Amino acid sequence: MQTYLYDFYGELLTEHQRNIYEDFVLNDFSLSEIAQEAGISRQGVYDLVRRCDKILGGYEEKLHLLERFLKTKEQISRIQAIAKGCGNQGFEAMAEILAISEEVLNEL
Amino acid sequence: MQTYLYDFYGELLTEHQRNIYEDFVLNDFSLSEIAQEAGISRQGVYDLVRRCDKILGGYEEKLHLLERFLKTKEQISRIQAIAKGCGNQGFEAMAEILAISEEVLNEL
Repeated sequence: MQTYLYDFYGELLTEHQRNIYEDFVLNDFSLSEIAQEAGISRQGVYDLVRRCDKILGGYEEKLHLLERFLKTKEQISRIQAIAKGCGNQGFEAMAEILAISEEVLNEL
Repeated sequence: MQTYLYDFYGELLTEHQRNIYEDFVLNDFSLSEIAQEAGISRQGVYDLVRRCDKILGGYEEKLHLLERFLKTKEQISRIQAIAKGCGNQGFEAMAEILAISEEVLNEL
């Protein structure tokens, strides 16, 4: 969920916040490693990450855009599953629907 | 486009900004009407609306979430059109796909 929230709202953090948050959440570095790299304390890194979580969560609480996306994704997955299940019946339109649904899912 | 941007990011404006922006963009009131109601000048209303446009546009420039939604919407519309085109061929799965795609489109 941290990764999703970051993907959606990360650009609203400062560059400094993004660097540290990415190192912790996406690159899985330890607090000590990040602290050393950034020249701040281990606790400072931890506080910053928690603060970013709060900021990102706050945007989602207001906008609910991630929620909307996840719902759409789930619905398109159902379309994809139906289209896949019909794959052997030689129905051309279904192949087309399958192709589009996969295109959507790759981008969501 | 103003309406879309407001739908996506409007919650990030202040309540005062939202009230005036809604009156102008969604409710189609005149600048003078809004000015009188809010107790500010006509120019003040206009400046506030322009500032809100800029704020909302700035969020989209950073996040591109509206762009992602509009693209998804276009793709699902294509799925819907295909499913509709096959409506008379008694293909049960297609009816299901049509129902889901309409559900998605209603919510996007």
